Amino acid sequence: MKNNALILCITLMLFPSVLNAQDLFVAPSQEGWERAEYTHRQADFPKINAKGEFWFRFQAPPTASEVVLNIPVAGVSMPMQKDADGFWNAILTIPKVGFQIYYIVVDGVRFLDPGTTPFYGNGYTGTVEVPSPDEDYYVIKDVPHGDVREHWFYSDVDKKFRRAFVYTPAGYDTEVNRRYPVLYLQHGAGEDESEWTHSGRAAVILDNLIAEGKAVPMIVVMNNDFVYRPGDDRSGRLYLAPTGIENFGEMFIGEAIPDIDAHYRTIADPAHRAMAGLSLGGMITNQVGLAHSSMFAYYGIFSGGTVSNPERIDKNTVRFIFETCGSQEYPERIAADVETLNGMGIKAASYVSPGTAHEWQTWRRSLHEFLPLIFK
Amino acid sequence: MKNNALILCITLMLFPSVLNAQDLFVAPSQEGWERAEYTHRQADFPKINAKGEFWFRFQAPPTASEVVLNIPVAGVSMPMQKDADGFWNAILTIPKVGFQIYYIVVDGVRFLDPGTTPFYGNGYTGTVEVPSPDEDYYVIKDVPHGDVREHWFYSDVDKKFRRAFVYTPAGYDTEVNRRYPVLYLQHGAGEDESEWTHSGRAAVILDNLIAEGKAVPMIVVMNNDFVYRPGDDRSGRLYLAPTGIENFGEMFIGEAIPDIDAHYRTIADPAHRAMAGLSLGGMITNQVGLAHSSMFAYYGIFSGGTVSNPERIDKNTVRFIFETCGSQEYPERIAADVETLNGMGIKAASYVSPGTAHEWQTWRRSLHEFLPLIFK
Repeated sequence: MKNNALILCITLMLFPSVLNAQDLFVAPSQEGWERAEYTHRQADFPKINAKGEFWFRFQAPPTASEVVLNIPVAGVSMPMQKDADGFWNAILTIPKVGFQIYYIVVDGVRFLDPGTTPFYGNGYTGTVEVPSPDEDYYVIKDVPHGDVREHWFYSDVDKKFRRAFVYTPAGYDTEVNRRYPVLYLQHGAGEDESEWTHSGRAAVILDNLIAEGKAVPMIVVMNNDFVYRPGDDRSGRLYLAPTGIENFGEMFIGEAIPDIDAHYRTIADPAHRAMAGLSLGGMITNQVGLAHSSMFAYYGIFSGGTVSNPERIDKNTVRFIFETCGSQEYPERIAADVETLNGMGIKAASYVSPGTAHEWQTWRRSLHEFLPLIFK
Repeated sequence: MKNNALILCITLMLFPSVLNAQDLFVAPSQEGWERAEYTHRQADFPKINAKGEFWFRFQAPPTASEVVLNIPVAGVSMPMQKDADGFWNAILTIPKVGFQIYYIVVDGVRFLDPGTTPFYGNGYTGTVEVPSPDEDYYVIKDVPHGDVREHWFYSDVDKKFRRAFVYTPAGYDTEVNRRYPVLYLQHGAGEDESEWTHSGRAAVILDNLIAEGKAVPMIVVMNNDFVYRPGDDRSGRLYLAPTGIENFGEMFIGEAIPDIDAHYRTIADPAHRAMAGLSLGGMITNQVGLAHSSMFAYYGIFSGGTVSNPERIDKNTVRFIFETCGSQEYPERIAADVETLNGMGIKAASYVSPGTAHEWQTWRRSLHEFLPLIFK
């Protein structure tokens, strides 16, 4: 062992260039490249070109020997190449469209690129938006825009002020005698209440559908899924346990909905109230929303499993249940569940997002399909 | 040289423990430590204890040899210590209060801690909130809360949709015939339009002052300082050049204000319109706002220099100019400027934030001092 090390040392002293044996990255011309949509004003990378290729650049510590770009949902794990200035680079076509998170792995340790708007995620990550040639329903257009409001209310369950985001449609401030139906929309386990409008572009989707007359003007309320009582252990996955769901239910049914009905011009009856969510938010829609099925007429469960205990459903109130997932998830399961529900006399339908998995493009599409079907 | 390297190699082979010569960090008991205010739900660090000490922990690549915690405004540059699990740690009392940004320097390269809510900054950074024993005007309380709305409008100057945040006070939705004065509030060069409500806690300060009857209910509009025409070079500091200020002025005066007057219940006259900003936002208040002094009755320049060309000021419209900075900035300059303005028959006053520099605590305090003085 010592001999081997000695030989290595001597080799390095005689031929130090072996340390730089890997090919240096040679940057293409900067022409045709511009900052990608989420790139920070003062950062130069990530960039995108007209072909839709992305160019990532990252500064690792000088001793780094292996730097990898990881775009998990798109299945990308690509070694980055060092350039003459010591930065690590990767240029690629990302094989999925829509909102993609990424991080950089330096010698096995995960880092966040400070150059892009972070995603809340399971710990913050970088983000890029991969243009979709066939979809423009989530692109901001010259239509009347609603506002997304940061709204605070006190919860006696977790003994703190909670933040919710509330979408009020265009016209809300001028048609002051008009009241609106309400959709409660929950995020997934790796997110917070901000991500339906950030990653999900819910407000843009609503503005566009309402402007086209495809969805009715509605209020959309986005609450945080997580409710911890003082003393609850926050280190584990409490929110997946019955206690976490119970905490949420008590806050949501007992506090959040009455607060919204008090502060916004809702039509505060079950026929004008809907609940939907993605992943954990879909589970919550099932476990909390459908447990109170005399309160909501419409339900959307996006990549959130299937309906449990359908016999509990109040058929006099519930008008429609919508189940969705990506084609790479479990389309057969939701198709079978919809058949079961319809067989019980509960109106239900499903939607399968083509070519997607458990990812934001599935949920943007799910919301876009769901909104025209409710409050009509 | 080769001989020295040979001696080093042999030494390392014989005594590999010299590589681990530094003392390992020994973690204190976790008791009494909890997640700090901005710590991510799924992250364990930074933590804070009852004494107000912070504990930072960061995972660097395994080859890292020097890891430093940098809290620039507080003057902290502290070597972190490796623990037995390979994480780098620092425990300290931060010598400044309020909102503090930080980053981690690994072998000379700056990294972002993925464990906290990022600050937009000059490239994203980590954040902590250091409690201030004497100040609670920016702590959320059980008072009526206004909403902060994300509002989009199209600009023909930079040919894109722009985002503004608009604070509407509690009661805005119920007192539907009431109209309100408007404060336009600009951020600094290292920020964006989100930071007055995030780092600055402007909405909390407004809610508290309005609830106490110290400030009148008002609308507050926070626009982004940066306006680039198609083809403008975005790589430099255009926003500090005359072109950048002109671009902003054209967007702000010609588009943003009319858009707000069209979409919100403003009192759309100069006596009920104010403009203020911090740092670059103060410069803009001076260079754009005071260049249109027949449009605004009140001005706030926070750490943004002094008034240029006071002879241009429309004394029939302008009722008050407020200049502030931290005691570690240039209090003499603003005191002299206020004297000059008063000597010209323009009502002006100054405020100096004790013990602070060019930092958020200066600007929170400046806003808190300014709001009671306007629209009265």
